[in-house]
Amino acid sequence: MFAVIMAGGVGTRFWPHSREKKPKQFLRIFDQRTLIQQTYDRLLPVIPNERIYFVLNTNQKAELLRQIPQAEEENIIIEPFGKNTAPCIGLAALHIQRQDPEAIMVVLPADHLIRNIATFQKVLRVGEKFLQQQDYLVTIGVTPDRPATGYGYIQFSEPIAEIDGIPIYRVKTFAEKPTLDTAQRFLRSGDFVWNSGMFIWKAKIILEEIEEFLPEFYDGLMEIENHIGQPTYWEVVETVYRQIRSISIDYGVMEKSRRVCVIKSDLGWSDVGSWDEVHKLVDKDKNGNGIVGEALVKDSRECLIFSTDKFIAALGVENLIITESEDAILVCHKDQAQNVRELVELLKRKKLKNLI
Amino acid sequence: MFAVIMAGGVGTRFWPHSREKKPKQFLRIFDQRTLIQQTYDRLLPVIPNERIYFVLNTNQKAELLRQIPQAEEENIIIEPFGKNTAPCIGLAALHIQRQDPEAIMVVLPADHLIRNIATFQKVLRVGEKFLQQQDYLVTIGVTPDRPATGYGYIQFSEPIAEIDGIPIYRVKTFAEKPTLDTAQRFLRSGDFVWNSGMFIWKAKIILEEIEEFLPEFYDGLMEIENHIGQPTYWEVVETVYRQIRSISIDYGVMEKSRRVCVIKSDLGWSDVGSWDEVHKLVDKDKNGNGIVGEALVKDSRECLIFSTDKFIAALGVENLIITESEDAILVCHKDQAQNVRELVELLKRKKLKNLI
Repeated sequence: MFAVIMAGGVGTRFWPHSREKKPKQFLRIFDQRTLIQQTYDRLLPVIPNERIYFVLNTNQKAELLRQIPQAEEENIIIEPFGKNTAPCIGLAALHIQRQDPEAIMVVLPADHLIRNIATFQKVLRVGEKFLQQQDYLVTIGVTPDRPATGYGYIQFSEPIAEIDGIPIYRVKTFAEKPTLDTAQRFLRSGDFVWNSGMFIWKAKIILEEIEEFLPEFYDGLMEIENHIGQPTYWEVVETVYRQIRSISIDYGVMEKSRRVCVIKSDLGWSDVGSWDEVHKLVDKDKNGNGIVGEALVKDSRECLIFSTDKFIAALGVENLIITESEDAILVCHKDQAQNVRELVELLKRKKLKNLI
Repeated sequence: MFAVIMAGGVGTRFWPHSREKKPKQFLRIFDQRTLIQQTYDRLLPVIPNERIYFVLNTNQKAELLRQIPQAEEENIIIEPFGKNTAPCIGLAALHIQRQDPEAIMVVLPADHLIRNIATFQKVLRVGEKFLQQQDYLVTIGVTPDRPATGYGYIQFSEPIAEIDGIPIYRVKTFAEKPTLDTAQRFLRSGDFVWNSGMFIWKAKIILEEIEEFLPEFYDGLMEIENHIGQPTYWEVVETVYRQIRSISIDYGVMEKSRRVCVIKSDLGWSDVGSWDEVHKLVDKDKNGNGIVGEALVKDSRECLIFSTDKFIAALGVENLIITESEDAILVCHKDQAQNVRELVELLKRKKLKNLI
C-alpha cells in the first residue's frame, strides 16, 4: 500500500502561527511534533517511508524537508498551485500507478488530528485487505459524537463486507456541511458518519473514475503522463493546472461514483479547522480555560491561551483566544475564530507582507 | 527654588511593563521619554539641574542614572524602604534646608502626566513668588473635568493672594477618593479641585509642620541630621525608617495644618493610575480603540492595545487591555485594570521571580 499525504493546504485560520510559507500542517499545535509529522508518524507502522508520497506546492517543499528529512525526493509531487483535492489526487495516482499498476493508495490530509492511532492503523489494514479483493472507492467515516456543522457527512446503507470484524458499508449519499437542525437529525438517524477526507482505493480505479466523471482533467493527466521523466514535464503540469477547474474529489468523483463504500471508525479525529476547535481539543481547567505554554489566568473562563516565548496572563476575560507566535499576537473572540482568515485578508490589503 | 522628584514608587498596576526594578515612573508610556524623564524635562526651564533632587530606594538608583545621567550624585536621596510620602518629603526637606535655610522646594511625583507644560511652569513660578513673601504650604490643585472617583479632592474658599493674574485660595478641606455621587456633587459645587500630590513650600516650614503634627518622625529627622556626612548616617536612616509609620504628607500634615492654600490650574494632568487610565489618555479611533505600537483591530471596540516588539491583532473583542512587554503579555478586561496588582501578587506566590 502507498500513502499520499496532501500537504498543499494554505489555510490562514491559524494566523499568527500559520503563514503562507508555513500553513497549519507545519505547525506544532498539540504536541512537540507538527501535524504533518504526526500524520507521517502514524502511517509508518503500516506503510514504509519509500511508499509515502507528499503533494504540495513549491513554496512548501523546503519546510517539508526540514520537518521530514526522510521524505524521498522522488516521492515529493509538486503542484504549481492548489486546485483543490481532485487534481492533487489524480496527479498522485498517476505517479503511483507507474510504480505499481495494481497499487492501493491511501489519501489523507496532512493537517488533521487523530488520537486513536491504533484504530486508524487497523482501518488502513482493513481497507487494504478489502481492496485486494474488490475495486471499490473506500472512504474513512468517523462516528460523530456531536451534531457538528463544520463537517461533511456520509450516509451509509447495508454492509457489503466484513474484514477482521470490521464491517464495510455501501454509501448512500454525501451531504455537505449541514445546519444544526439537519446535523441533529443526522446524529439521531444513526446512519450518518463524518467525512474525514481520507480515502483508500487502487490508483488505477480512481483514475478510471476520474476518466468517467472529470474527463477533461483525465485528458490533462494523460498529457502529463506522456511527459513524466522529460524536461517538458513541469511546463505541461503548469499548462494543465492552469486549464483545469478547482474541484474537490468529493464533489468531482465520490458523490457521482457508484462504487463508493465506507469504513466507520472511532478515530478521535478532528480537522482542526480553527482556533476554537483547538480550544475544544486541549485539556481545560475547571473554568474551561485551555492553556498551552506558559500562562496564568485569573477570574477568566472558556479561554484558549497559546503562548510560545512570552508569558501570557489573562485577567477577567472570557471566551477569548489569546495566541502568540514568533512575531505577532492575536486576541480573538472565540465566536470569531472563523474570521481570522478575513483578518489575514486585511493584513494583505495593508501590505503587511512580513505578517502573511 | 529646589525640586524634589519622588521616584520611589513601586506600583505594580502596569505589569507586565512595570517590574520591581522598573516601576511605572521608568516606563515609556506616552512618549519616547519615560514618565520620570518627562517630569525632569518639564522642571528644567524653571529649576536648574543642580537643584533637582530625587528620592528613591537603592534598587532604583541604577535605572535613574541610566535614564537621567545628569542627575547629581549628591542630589539622590536614598530611602531604605518606602514609607509613603511624609518620610520621603521630610528627609528631602532636611537635606535641602542644609543647602539653603530659606529654600523653597517643589515636591512632585515622578510618574504623573502633565500635558499643559507651560501652565505647569507658570504655576511653579507663581508659587515661588508667593512663597518669597509668605510661609504657606501651597498645593497644586487641578480643575476637574469629570467626576473622577480615583483622585482625592481639595475644597477651597476665598482667595488670599493673586500673583501674575493667578489667584491663590485658602484651603477649606481635603477629601479622600469620593464615591461617584459625591464626586458629582463636588463637580457641581465648583469649589473642589483634584489633589495632584504636588506641593510647593519652604523646606523649613514643612519641617516646622512635621514637628507639630508628626513629632516622633521629626525627632527621627533630627537624629538623622546629626549624622549627615558621617559614616553612621545610613545606619541611622535605616533605624528611623524602621520605627516610623508609613504615612502620607496629605494625611499626616496637610489635612491638619492651618496654613494650606491651593493654586487652581488646568494642567492636563493625570496620575496614570492604571491601564484603563492610559486608554482614556491616548488618541482613539472612531470605535474607541487606542493603539500604541504596531497593531490592527477588526470588529473591536473600546480596547487599548499596547505593543512593543510583536504585532498585535484584535478580532471581535471589546473593553480589553492588550499589552505586551519584553517577556510577557497581558490581556485584561478594562474593568479589572485595578486588579493587575493582584495578578502580580499571584505571580509572587507562584514564585515566578523573572516576571515580577
